[in-house]
Amino acid sequence: MTHSPRILALDFGGTKLSAAMTLAGSQTWLAHRRVFTPADANGPFEYRTMLDMAHELIIEMGHPAAIGVSFGGPVDASRGLVRLSHHVSGWENTPLAEKLHAAFGVPVAVENDANVAALGEYQFGAGKNADPLLYLTVSTGIGGGWIFDGEIYGGVDGMAGEIGHTVVNPGGMSCVCGKRGCVEAEACGAAIARRARQMIDANSVDGPALLERLGVTAHKITAVDVSRAVALNIPLARQILTESARFLGQGIGNAINLMNPRRVILGGGVTKAGDLWWTVVRETARSYVLPEISVEIVPVALGDDAPLWGAVRLAMNSLQ
Amino acid sequence: MTHSPRILALDFGGTKLSAAMTLAGSQTWLAHRRVFTPADANGPFEYRTMLDMAHELIIEMGHPAAIGVSFGGPVDASRGLVRLSHHVSGWENTPLAEKLHAAFGVPVAVENDANVAALGEYQFGAGKNADPLLYLTVSTGIGGGWIFDGEIYGGVDGMAGEIGHTVVNPGGMSCVCGKRGCVEAEACGAAIARRARQMIDANSVDGPALLERLGVTAHKITAVDVSRAVALNIPLARQILTESARFLGQGIGNAINLMNPRRVILGGGVTKAGDLWWTVVRETARSYVLPEISVEIVPVALGDDAPLWGAVRLAMNSLQ
Repeated sequence: MTHSPRILALDFGGTKLSAAMTLAGSQTWLAHRRVFTPADANGPFEYRTMLDMAHELIIEMGHPAAIGVSFGGPVDASRGLVRLSHHVSGWENTPLAEKLHAAFGVPVAVENDANVAALGEYQFGAGKNADPLLYLTVSTGIGGGWIFDGEIYGGVDGMAGEIGHTVVNPGGMSCVCGKRGCVEAEACGAAIARRARQMIDANSVDGPALLERLGVTAHKITAVDVSRAVALNIPLARQILTESARFLGQGIGNAINLMNPRRVILGGGVTKAGDLWWTVVRETARSYVLPEISVEIVPVALGDDAPLWGAVRLAMNSLQ
Repeated sequence: MTHSPRILALDFGGTKLSAAMTLAGSQTWLAHRRVFTPADANGPFEYRTMLDMAHELIIEMGHPAAIGVSFGGPVDASRGLVRLSHHVSGWENTPLAEKLHAAFGVPVAVENDANVAALGEYQFGAGKNADPLLYLTVSTGIGGGWIFDGEIYGGVDGMAGEIGHTVVNPGGMSCVCGKRGCVEAEACGAAIARRARQMIDANSVDGPALLERLGVTAHKITAVDVSRAVALNIPLARQILTESARFLGQGIGNAINLMNPRRVILGGGVTKAGDLWWTVVRETARSYVLPEISVEIVPVALGDDAPLWGAVRLAMNSLQ
């Protein structure tokens, strides 16, 4: 009996840490652990917590031959260096691959979470044989990653895929990046909530009625609340969600005209907003794309595990 | 003495036909011919005219080992098939590679002009060692082409690079493609002229003064006239050119955020509009791009010969 090497996958997410072990070539986990991080977590705390989870998995399952890491923030993949986290302080310029290599003595590959998730979906999920592939996570923010020729395409500075910060609405909503009208500022979960507050304020009858129906205050309304109201077929909620979905469709349409990829895969919480959202995103993108160009926009298959599976594939690269 | 094989390069442009012969590995032409096409030219006429030029070059210089063709319109490069010309009728579904192969008995490669020009600049011009490379021609319309790993990247349907039809200004100027606010509709030469007419109409004092200074009517004003007025430092002209250049800068900034290429090369008549235009394009693109991403926007080196040199490189691929 031959043994496939064990692969350890680690995922530093915005709100949770995940670690899992598999065998190279397998598509199921030997073991899987996940913890939610406290709101006041910092980089060193997250690193120690992840290290503990990794040690537990190793005691249980044995030593891995390689480690793949997904990190929620900009990464210099060639050096395995975390540039920073947008969610958690204390990660600035952390040589994460070097530290994990020192701790476990095996090859370590580190990549940005959107890139790794793209690779996971390409290898194991909704992106099989779909090359080139654009993956988007539409969540609190909007991230993106590219697969070209079966591998992550990170661009010259490792920053390719930043569709969230392409501008689709000059003078529109202000973005965390300092610009206005970015895809992220118009279409991410936080943007849907912000648009809901604006449109509720602007509609003195329908606005309060919407809040009453949902049992929330304007101050606390979320993208999930908006989806609930869309499911109840409330016109104002449909309008809010449609506007955000349109700007996302425009951004995706622009990306398709520019790169003519095989497939676009959408993941993240906002993609669970229901049929209306999907229909508007797809129809808007189609309407923006030149007629000669094919358009294929599909949901993720791996859900929250996409970054972990991508990390597995990343680690396997280092064994070849 | 060893002989490098002769390469024949043909360029079907919007208003002119060019043919040239070189030796593989050389960077000068053995012979070069160019004719301007009459306004009522159709596909068969252009094909016959090009065939005559090719025969003349061959009589003069000898038979080529391969032929590369640049065509101004959508092409199915894998089959050497011209889909259509946006400028000249009668090109629909022309098997151009097949016809030229039948006429000359050597390998023929056919590609879209923006893609071929990108390859020419990459191999011989302003794009040496710049990979990935985005090339834009900002002329009557706006075309684009990508180089990845040293070769044309055409995308799944051979349509990649259509930055001209990414939308940067929803609800803006109407585009030939049927949408509004495309980069082409806001920033190409025809768009600068259209914006000039609009802004002259809207400025009852400065508008007529601008026309008088230039000695043109609003109906006939061109992008070149606007550049002339910018050179004369006329504020209204500066405003017209700046607005168009800003939308182009936004489109380029979006492309850079999405793909993080090594370099962007700009060619075409509008790029001769002067320093103001270049400054606005570069500064706008920089302001739209995330701080971690490098931005390099440079003019073409090969000028009007970029498609011919790209066709040479394309033909050389078929000799390997």
